[in-house]
Amino acid sequence: MAQENNNSLFPKGEKLTNGYFTGDAFLKTLLTKDKNNDFVIGSVTFEPEARTNWHTHPKGQVLIVTEGYGFYQEKGKPAQTLKKGSVINIPENTEHWHGASAGSHLAHIAITNFLGEENAVWLQPVTDSEYNEVNKNNKL
Amino acid sequence: MAQENNNSLFPKGEKLTNGYFTGDAFLKTLLTKDKNNDFVIGSVTFEPEARTNWHTHPKGQVLIVTEGYGFYQEKGKPAQTLKKGSVINIPENTEHWHGASAGSHLAHIAITNFLGEENAVWLQPVTDSEYNEVNKNNKL
Repeated sequence: MAQENNNSLFPKGEKLTNGYFTGDAFLKTLLTKDKNNDFVIGSVTFEPEARTNWHTHPKGQVLIVTEGYGFYQEKGKPAQTLKKGSVINIPENTEHWHGASAGSHLAHIAITNFLGEENAVWLQPVTDSEYNEVNKNNKL
Repeated sequence: MAQENNNSLFPKGEKLTNGYFTGDAFLKTLLTKDKNNDFVIGSVTFEPEARTNWHTHPKGQVLIVTEGYGFYQEKGKPAQTLKKGSVINIPENTEHWHGASAGSHLAHIAITNFLGEENAVWLQPVTDSEYNEVNKNNKL
């Protein structure tokens, strides 16, 4: 189970079973798209080693990290480390992944913009080789 | 000084001196408006007794409370209490205020949508009488 305690900002929510994640990740939806807000907001909690598939967002996404330690990596670039208070402004149509480190869980708020009715394009899993390389280069 | 410690999600940022707040409030800007994000994101920290003026947002605002205890009140309605994890979806063109309780600080993330170049219309201060009434009715 992902670490969770009374200090967590949000409950973990429901386990994600959509096939777009490796390992165990959970989603607590905070806000759905409506006439004023052309985005969804959710809190995503990744257990250690859990991460998204590679994916893109047609109109970008903003991550606000609320606890733990993890990574954000754009294809072909070094990973950026994520910790409490990190804010990442993910550009449109940019292949990337995010998730927990091997040694810690990660929780972040995600504000995901829509382009029409679409807000994400899901691609291949992040391989263990890709993931291990990032962990090796970014020890806590 | 507002309470702040190593557990705070964000630093307090800069003291707000725009005349639209009563008491001491602070803003840490997290994200500015850009081509993908038609909103600004900031972390606002209110010292005890600090609150916004009454105001409206032409395209609404989302609040995500990160610590403390406070209030959100729409004109003519009972106040809602705010605590860590509270999410408020503020409708467009709806007169309201938010802020700390008399006995606690409050910190929230604010995602403020734009309508064209405008994102807020500032009105009169929340009087001590209005504020004290809300505190009296919502003791921790």
